[in-house]
Amino acid sequence: MRVLHYYPLCPYSRKVRLCLAEKKLDFSQEIENFWEKKPELTNLNPLGHVPVLVDLNGSILTDSTAIVEYLEEAYPDRKLYPEELLARAETRRLMAWFDTRFAQEVSLVILWEKVIKRMAAKSMGQSSVGPDSNLIRHTKTIMTNHLEYLAWLVDRRNWLAGDHFTLADVTAAAHISVVDYFGDINWEKFESVKNWFMRIKSRPSYRGFFTDRVPAIAPASHYAELDF
Amino acid sequence: MRVLHYYPLCPYSRKVRLCLAEKKLDFSQEIENFWEKKPELTNLNPLGHVPVLVDLNGSILTDSTAIVEYLEEAYPDRKLYPEELLARAETRRLMAWFDTRFAQEVSLVILWEKVIKRMAAKSMGQSSVGPDSNLIRHTKTIMTNHLEYLAWLVDRRNWLAGDHFTLADVTAAAHISVVDYFGDINWEKFESVKNWFMRIKSRPSYRGFFTDRVPAIAPASHYAELDF
Repeated sequence: MRVLHYYPLCPYSRKVRLCLAEKKLDFSQEIENFWEKKPELTNLNPLGHVPVLVDLNGSILTDSTAIVEYLEEAYPDRKLYPEELLARAETRRLMAWFDTRFAQEVSLVILWEKVIKRMAAKSMGQSSVGPDSNLIRHTKTIMTNHLEYLAWLVDRRNWLAGDHFTLADVTAAAHISVVDYFGDINWEKFESVKNWFMRIKSRPSYRGFFTDRVPAIAPASHYAELDF
Repeated sequence: MRVLHYYPLCPYSRKVRLCLAEKKLDFSQEIENFWEKKPELTNLNPLGHVPVLVDLNGSILTDSTAIVEYLEEAYPDRKLYPEELLARAETRRLMAWFDTRFAQEVSLVILWEKVIKRMAAKSMGQSSVGPDSNLIRHTKTIMTNHLEYLAWLVDRRNWLAGDHFTLADVTAAAHISVVDYFGDINWEKFESVKNWFMRIKSRPSYRGFFTDRVPAIAPASHYAELDF
């Protein structure tokens, strides 16, 4: 059986989960509290990062970009890159945008402040640390610029990279969905982005996210709503 | 004519320059002081980042990973990915390692402290700021772990990702070459990595780097030596 080692609110894990589900590839799930650096995970990936995919033949794959490129090459039946060269480049440009800029400026900051910081402290026997509210406020301001750019894209295109649903939508949705778990997006201000995100939430590949939970933090009330 | 907009000591620019040269694709060069945020560059890439490639048909490509994937697909004659699926995944895993971990922990820190910080201050009319010597010392310690991992790889493989020269070697060399400009690598401690790097420096694709200069900082004495 194919096994995905992941953490429910890790955006890179979500990218790979969406990719597997869109390609209708079955996998069993191993949830990893990656900050605990347990040998079960570090034996698979010395960096101790998730996601890690162990494919049917036992091959171990790490790094979410390497994994989705591998899946696209190994399982080409349901393609998540467009055919045309420049559309493929545009897809990868947007993936990089979310996996680096949006991640460093928004999704990883929110995830760290609201969950991982506390879990990591707890696992080291240290006292609990609350989120830095100034940093969260600043992060939400920066996120507005990203959402405005997303709005610019979806006002002009059917999907982020053009006519078709691609790994650009997968990657953006993976990061946005993490922030949305905490209810940190003011959807009323971004109607067109909300419509794009609603279309993604309606896809069967997204369903697995609805039941994701992390200890002590319930998701926002609309988190599992298709019409929010 | 194909045009590459780049900054000489930007590791991502160097990755694309090596890739173009390995594929024997001619290009004219536009050096961009990207921190000045001039419209010539931001009109091509709103993020104001380098590298930006304008290909023969006028297509504008940004993000170094999207660019090298595009070049591999558009110009497949001289391949820089291996044929086999898992070897391709291994190549991409190592590219991500250098483009994210090594960059954030080492190459971008050194470049910022030793050059860009000063240039950016100057362009904003502020007084010059010297490098943070504690941070540089700390960065060199972290780099040792990366070089040890590189040594582990080259002791077991002909090239970083396996039997063949790939984009993993291109990416690693791009980042290492930037640190080497400043003479910050203690090569005597890493004989096997030095041999790997010497083989890369001997390739015609690397030659363009030998004459790269930045204002006020001469390269290390061995920077343009093939046998250092």
